[in-house]
Amino acid sequence: MIIVLRPDASASDTEQIRSYLNSKGAELKCIDGEYRCVLGVVGCTDGIDAGYIEGLSFVESVTRISEPYRLSGRLGHPADSVIDICGRKIGGGNFEIIAGPCSVESEDQICSAAEVVKACGAGLLRGGAFKPRTSPYEFQGLGTKGLELLKKAKRLTGLPTVTEIMLPEQLPLFEDVDVIQVGARNMQNFELLKELGKAKKPILLKRGWSNTIKELLTSAEYIIGAGNSDIILCERGIRTFEPYTRNTLDLSAVPVIHELSHLPVIVDPSHATGHSGYVGAMALAAVAAGADGLMIEVHPEPCRALCDAAQAITPAQFSEIVTKVNAVRKAIGK
Amino acid sequence: MIIVLRPDASASDTEQIRSYLNSKGAELKCIDGEYRCVLGVVGCTDGIDAGYIEGLSFVESVTRISEPYRLSGRLGHPADSVIDICGRKIGGGNFEIIAGPCSVESEDQICSAAEVVKACGAGLLRGGAFKPRTSPYEFQGLGTKGLELLKKAKRLTGLPTVTEIMLPEQLPLFEDVDVIQVGARNMQNFELLKELGKAKKPILLKRGWSNTIKELLTSAEYIIGAGNSDIILCERGIRTFEPYTRNTLDLSAVPVIHELSHLPVIVDPSHATGHSGYVGAMALAAVAAGADGLMIEVHPEPCRALCDAAQAITPAQFSEIVTKVNAVRKAIGK
Amino acid sequence: MIIVLRPDASASDTEQIRSYLNSKGAELKCIDGEYRCVLGVVGCTDGIDAGYIEGLSFVESVTRISEPYRLSGRLGHPADSVIDICGRKIGGGNFEIIAGPCSVESEDQICSAAEVVKACGAGLLRGGAFKPRTSPYEFQGLGTKGLELLKKAKRLTGLPTVTEIMLPEQLPLFEDVDVIQVGARNMQNFELLKELGKAKKPILLKRGWSNTIKELLTSAEYIIGAGNSDIILCERGIRTFEPYTRNTLDLSAVPVIHELSHLPVIVDPSHATGHSGYVGAMALAAVAAGADGLMIEVHPEPCRALCDAAQAITPAQFSEIVTKVNAVRKAIGK
Amino acid sequence: MIIVLRPDASASDTEQIRSYLNSKGAELKCIDGEYRCVLGVVGCTDGIDAGYIEGLSFVESVTRISEPYRLSGRLGHPADSVIDICGRKIGGGNFEIIAGPCSVESEDQICSAAEVVKACGAGLLRGGAFKPRTSPYEFQGLGTKGLELLKKAKRLTGLPTVTEIMLPEQLPLFEDVDVIQVGARNMQNFELLKELGKAKKPILLKRGWSNTIKELLTSAEYIIGAGNSDIILCERGIRTFEPYTRNTLDLSAVPVIHELSHLPVIVDPSHATGHSGYVGAMALAAVAAGADGLMIEVHPEPCRALCDAAQAITPAQFSEIVTKVNAVRKAIGK
Repeated sequence: MIIVLRPDASASDTEQIRSYLNSKGAELKCIDGEYRCVLGVVGCTDGIDAGYIEGLSFVESVTRISEPYRLSGRLGHPADSVIDICGRKIGGGNFEIIAGPCSVESEDQICSAAEVVKACGAGLLRGGAFKPRTSPYEFQGLGTKGLELLKKAKRLTGLPTVTEIMLPEQLPLFEDVDVIQVGARNMQNFELLKELGKAKKPILLKRGWSNTIKELLTSAEYIIGAGNSDIILCERGIRTFEPYTRNTLDLSAVPVIHELSHLPVIVDPSHATGHSGYVGAMALAAVAAGADGLMIEVHPEPCRALCDAAQAITPAQFSEIVTKVNAVRKAIGK
Repeated sequence: MIIVLRPDASASDTEQIRSYLNSKGAELKCIDGEYRCVLGVVGCTDGIDAGYIEGLSFVESVTRISEPYRLSGRLGHPADSVIDICGRKIGGGNFEIIAGPCSVESEDQICSAAEVVKACGAGLLRGGAFKPRTSPYEFQGLGTKGLELLKKAKRLTGLPTVTEIMLPEQLPLFEDVDVIQVGARNMQNFELLKELGKAKKPILLKRGWSNTIKELLTSAEYIIGAGNSDIILCERGIRTFEPYTRNTLDLSAVPVIHELSHLPVIVDPSHATGHSGYVGAMALAAVAAGADGLMIEVHPEPCRALCDAAQAITPAQFSEIVTKVNAVRKAIGK
Repeated sequence: MIIVLRPDASASDTEQIRSYLNSKGAELKCIDGEYRCVLGVVGCTDGIDAGYIEGLSFVESVTRISEPYRLSGRLGHPADSVIDICGRKIGGGNFEIIAGPCSVESEDQICSAAEVVKACGAGLLRGGAFKPRTSPYEFQGLGTKGLELLKKAKRLTGLPTVTEIMLPEQLPLFEDVDVIQVGARNMQNFELLKELGKAKKPILLKRGWSNTIKELLTSAEYIIGAGNSDIILCERGIRTFEPYTRNTLDLSAVPVIHELSHLPVIVDPSHATGHSGYVGAMALAAVAAGADGLMIEVHPEPCRALCDAAQAITPAQFSEIVTKVNAVRKAIGK
Repeated sequence: MIIVLRPDASASDTEQIRSYLNSKGAELKCIDGEYRCVLGVVGCTDGIDAGYIEGLSFVESVTRISEPYRLSGRLGHPADSVIDICGRKIGGGNFEIIAGPCSVESEDQICSAAEVVKACGAGLLRGGAFKPRTSPYEFQGLGTKGLELLKKAKRLTGLPTVTEIMLPEQLPLFEDVDVIQVGARNMQNFELLKELGKAKKPILLKRGWSNTIKELLTSAEYIIGAGNSDIILCERGIRTFEPYTRNTLDLSAVPVIHELSHLPVIVDPSHATGHSGYVGAMALAAVAAGADGLMIEVHPEPCRALCDAAQAITPAQFSEIVTKVNAVRKAIGK
């Protein structure tokens, strides 16, 4: 922790901070500059309230040096984590495509979707049963019935399933689900994260559309800290001033996360752009940026989708994208 | 609903949309422009999936005319709503200040905070028992014990209490709380919102730091639709590129919300700025912009606060702000 | 300047930085933490390229301590600057309202606007002659003819004039203008700023809609460094994700600028909101936040305005706002 | 143009708009919905002030249907434009890499940079002579001397040159430059754009870091409208809340621009990320997204760069990136 004092800070001001830090078991070292004094805090800074120090009238700024993502960070875990889902692997050079409809709508729909995405090369099946919708007047998902239909689709095709959880108390319902997804709106639902630390299966943690990379890793920290280190991160676009796409896909997050963390990161070009016409280009870009996987919305008949129809692609479009994805993976040696 | 077709759309494309809309019970009217055709949808558009239409290759854009906030909107409810909390009123010309510490930390702390904010003119007491913290290594609140201490502080001072809920299943614990707060991170926790529709007490709904005004009103719609129309909205800053303040307080939201909705809107300058030094100026600005109340963090000893110490102000500072707030209210005739 | 090394940095890495800094005349002091080493640079850091250091593979981050706004900053100039425009004063407790139409459109229009805003209490007249318009198909202003008409309006009413410059070579044309405005899009047009350093009159420097407060002060630094310290800063809204208002007025910038700089800061609620209906509320909020003045678009007949008609208010609305502004100023003792 | 009236608008309100539109030569068609009336404007809308209509008290919203980028848009020019620079082609399936240092620093530096980037496969040489720098205390470029050195580097290697202009009056100095660059800060410097319409050489127009895609195309419209249609667009990152990279590279802009416009679009991963370590991944992602070229900062000795050293890559790194870029281009068949 680095503390920069205001130019008019006095020696007794420094002493006030020193005695506070000593009481917390940390030490203070000073660098006297021409105009200002800079203080470095050495030792464990866990019990120290940066806010308290920042609030002091003679302090200009406080910067934490050690990041709050110790378990998800690469510093203490240099090797890439590899997440194994029923034999499919993501991370450490392994790559998978998760595909399927936005929502589970009927047995026919999810089963035919599962068969077609499998035939095209997807390794996992997605499909929402509990749907967080902005407006109460929109389709809210089939709920537990949707989970059952997902199970049928898995039995039929062998594809492991990925679906979203919305409440801690829903966890027991997810027993037959293979990967539990935390949606963008729940990335900082800390009670949910803590509960998922007890789950015995991988978690797909989507970045909130207005959360920084650092906050994403700190949310992963909640899950790992509670006992579950099988986490797949997912970049899905952030909110910006540009109205043409639903969100702005932040692909730089891929190399940044690979630098900061050992966890794998996949990309969802469907929710990011919100338009089926841009999904292919952004899927290829994500792969070229080094993503460990993709999550793509595919619907047997997009025009009948009950949810997010504008971004769903057809099986034929998906098939073409998978072919190009494989070519790009080969080109970059991944 | 307005549908703009691409310049190369054909008559049979229009017919495809017409037959879809007719099947949903709505009608289509066309305006042929020089280059493009614009279609207006007349009748109930509830069952219509805008995404499906937007996804059609010959459609350029789809715009909904009726907003999804019918219950929280002013159109069907022209008069200002007034929220009554144990006799204190917010909205429709009534103004209250909610003050207190970020977190309940001890009996002493919350009781002395309650006494001092009451003496300065606050009408309600705030204090967090369950705390959503970005990092798992930060103080997480006293939980149910915090709720008990709040109750004691109320018994001592008579001030109604405001505290944050984090999970639907916590609702029974909030029986003695007077206003249940939904934090910024939970503004789109739809399952929580639905549960709060069953609560028999006012809800303080904070705007998510990356949510639009329209999304805020649509979240209020979830609560009203589930049975509870006693809602106080709260502007508390949005995330922007400006790093000097924690968030950017969007005070324009106050007149905009007053135009669009009948619900009262208060402002929290403490979380928005994140620095005690700016709380006073922004509190006065909020009042001048027409806010129906304020929510301010006051701590008996900010330097000992376990949470967000940088933004807490002292009782003396609070007292001075209240005096000026009253002067500004008088100046603008509110 | 504070340099944080990566955990695996070696002693010879530190030496590489030390020898670079010594060659630039600065000194290095080290703080060895548990995991990392932090280096403080003491002495003049002007010739040091932070980018070079940041680019070194063993460096984690570089933070400058001294800000690049020495001339516009408060550190070397603690007293508020007061800008005098033909006897009207802005800053240091002095307050003025600049009002008038977006563009000068005709002699009649600008003269009747000048008379009416003067009668309502405005101290200066605004009106654009050269207009930066997003689209080439929009009205581009009357140019030099507009400057002449402004001069006539000044002769008629005695109001000093404020109008926007777009090119360094236009400076000679602005001889009879009293305050030269730099628009938001030109805040970082550094060649223009340097030229305005030679002007012998006050500059109204508007914040770019996507520039930080720090960048605004650094742009002011260009003008002061080139010889002109009569600068009035202007907050006029920043670009965010919220679509309801044209920009988001960042009123926190007012107390922040007052803390960091000695220069006065005024607020333009017209361009920020883009809707006449929100101008009044935001003008009052700006005053309550401590602004040193306001800039408001008033048009004798908004429905005939050739530019930005949606945000122009009528003389009657303006008169009412001025009355309330004065009441709020009195309430806060300014 | 679509005008949505407020629910309480009367027939005479509609007539007021109709008579205004008729006076401008356009016609009005109405769609009466259940609650509201929607008006469609048919005919030429050039002389119509959308702001005036939007400002009417009974109007809810106004949406323009035809975009203000007629010359840069694809509607009137379906085929891809191909820009020819001394035989190098960009657009319509042609791809080039522009590489070189941020600034021209010395004859040695620019000549050795030119030789090395040519050897690695770059088709054009970049190097700034006039540098727009945020702070007046930073290196401001060599000016005209830099232009001369660029010319020497071109003579030596045959590489066409790309360098930035800052003022309309500098145009005569750019006679020997092959592509004139408009920097992000000048994207809406409309006087400069108009002047460049008279230039007889290609313009590289960088997107402002806070400008929408629509604004980028409308700025291109200024240049084409003034006589020069040889324009290369460049995505270089937009300003967001994410602090880890300097800006957020918006790669979705590539397919969006390809859909809306016939102009080629290249990507600058160096300025977008601001860190040499992320340049390679983002360059590959840009190619996979369909970019028509790249602009990359390469410095013979990054540690000695006078400007933006943190983002410059070494010749060895550049060589490796070019090899992978070619592999990805082949993979996607471009």
